[in-house]
Amino acid sequence: MSSRASVAELGEFGLIARLAETLASPASPGLRPGLKIGIGDDAAVWAPTPATWSVITTDALIENVHFRLHTTSWYDLGWKSLAVNLSDVAAMGARPRYAVVCLGVPGEVAVTAIEEFGRGLADVGGRYGTALVGGDTVAAPCATISVTVVGETLPAAPGAPPPLLQRRAGRVGDLVAVTGTLGASAGGLRLLEGATPADADPAAAEALRAAHLRPTPRVNAAALLVAQGVRCAMDLSDGLLGDAQRVAEASDVGVVLEAARVPVAPALARLFPADALALALGGGEDYELLCAGPADVLAAAAAALAARGEPPLTIVGRLVASPAAGPRVQVVDAHGAPLAVQGGYVHFRS
Amino acid sequence: MSSRASVAELGEFGLIARLAETLASPASPGLRPGLKIGIGDDAAVWAPTPATWSVITTDALIENVHFRLHTTSWYDLGWKSLAVNLSDVAAMGARPRYAVVCLGVPGEVAVTAIEEFGRGLADVGGRYGTALVGGDTVAAPCATISVTVVGETLPAAPGAPPPLLQRRAGRVGDLVAVTGTLGASAGGLRLLEGATPADADPAAAEALRAAHLRPTPRVNAAALLVAQGVRCAMDLSDGLLGDAQRVAEASDVGVVLEAARVPVAPALARLFPADALALALGGGEDYELLCAGPADVLAAAAAALAARGEPPLTIVGRLVASPAAGPRVQVVDAHGAPLAVQGGYVHFRS
Repeated sequence: MSSRASVAELGEFGLIARLAETLASPASPGLRPGLKIGIGDDAAVWAPTPATWSVITTDALIENVHFRLHTTSWYDLGWKSLAVNLSDVAAMGARPRYAVVCLGVPGEVAVTAIEEFGRGLADVGGRYGTALVGGDTVAAPCATISVTVVGETLPAAPGAPPPLLQRRAGRVGDLVAVTGTLGASAGGLRLLEGATPADADPAAAEALRAAHLRPTPRVNAAALLVAQGVRCAMDLSDGLLGDAQRVAEASDVGVVLEAARVPVAPALARLFPADALALALGGGEDYELLCAGPADVLAAAAAALAARGEPPLTIVGRLVASPAAGPRVQVVDAHGAPLAVQGGYVHFRS
Repeated sequence: MSSRASVAELGEFGLIARLAETLASPASPGLRPGLKIGIGDDAAVWAPTPATWSVITTDALIENVHFRLHTTSWYDLGWKSLAVNLSDVAAMGARPRYAVVCLGVPGEVAVTAIEEFGRGLADVGGRYGTALVGGDTVAAPCATISVTVVGETLPAAPGAPPPLLQRRAGRVGDLVAVTGTLGASAGGLRLLEGATPADADPAAAEALRAAHLRPTPRVNAAALLVAQGVRCAMDLSDGLLGDAQRVAEASDVGVVLEAARVPVAPALARLFPADALALALGGGEDYELLCAGPADVLAAAAAALAARGEPPLTIVGRLVASPAAGPRVQVVDAHGAPLAVQGGYVHFRS
């Protein structure tokens, strides 16, 4: 059957076979050493790596809720739907290993679109050592995607549990840091939705759109953090302020963030200077890592990231005692004076 | 917030919290011994049971494609969406352990509906030792559900891989058997879609509807099969004829099924006598097990099922050499004469 066929013509089993072919392409990771049975039986089977723990996460993307087909390609959609799950696995301090995907599409979608989707999945999976081992393709009134990824921690040392990155592992006195720069994804979404930037800079615009459409999961950075002794982290999917709130709640602490230290994405500062800090604080889908730890641990982690060519680790604040009243997360200026924050927007009162 | 609130009023995080509460209810399995981190961090974490292999499967259900909200309750929907995945894990010879769910619903759905959905999930999960450890709740134009389940095989004996049930493990000369009875789910679907049965028997009608809405995954039966040495099986989700075709292809054999041996569900024979055999052969969603093995192995397995109060194992045919031409699956009468089969319907030519 020609690639110009629609999904309805190919049928469910044809679609699964086509996707499996795409995923077995050279760009895909192929069979992982531990994989015993891949696509084609009732379930996939693997041998867990001895002394590791397993982690699992799942995320759904719905057309016109999480993405629009006129602003994303099917390739990017495949990439992003897997990348956001790789990010969650990394944020536990684990390596992603195996993925399954449920894809619902209207019958009139072209088979080539599904192949592009599969290539996006396979490319980001291959880059981070993750094999697609199963899935389900169904008819649906709009495009619906859910991906589940299983990962493995580092092996445990004798007599100790394997190391993890947990939201609840923050301690009063820890410094708070983020990888990379923030706000680019939110700026990219603005551009995709038709906003006019302050500056016509095609390269900066493309950087923002790419950050939104093809986020880079910090799989390698997370592995370095956990190896350097960091134990508290999460990935930034809902914005620094909202996610800092979750670390604060899980660790029962307060968080003080210094606005001037937040690493605003340069392309964002260029194209949307008036809102850049607000988007860096409150915009979502950066998929950078937010972590907390003692100053010496974070310094060693920052050096390890730099040595491996990973994005920089920037100190943005510190964990403090849980406040008796008021918000757990405070944003302050360089002098420690509180700034009012509303919906991610910082109102400079001084 | 009151339980009469809509999902839109509660919001995504409120919904996750509500679902987590439902799932922590006494009916749920609670924390499995190996579970280290459940709902609430970036991913759930467990310690794999030593010497086992892990299996993973995923299935999606879409409103008005796989179910209609006017013919199913949210409780049944929760039950079924997990049960079909438990069935796939069982069909590999593994025990289901951990599940994650992605649930997309329109904002106007009542929170009580989500709680009912969660109770259905928790009840079937609890019955078969499976903990719900994570998920994602999103807005969607129609109800969309995808569930992923991870299971574990029996531990390997020293020097051998763990035992599995595989589609490709059938051998020429094996007998073919099914657990339980067939066709009830297809009959139930007919009733739900408004068909008038041949006989007004409320108990039989309820049995058919229940088979469709709340299928029983053969988790315990599968464990007995694999323990007795059965190595070839799959679950019956697309009908005996279609699924036998898959075993035939995976094992590169032919299958001969004797029509008179097929265990037609009694309630189906009563309510739809004219079509009962056709529905037992071609109707889907029975979630019984189809298996193949040497006669003595299947006899031992049948005895083990009977001893544990599991549904009977019925020999329905045998595996033969892969045919040089023609269909891999043949249906024959009691004298071995081929019957013509079309779309699940057997045309008695003699």
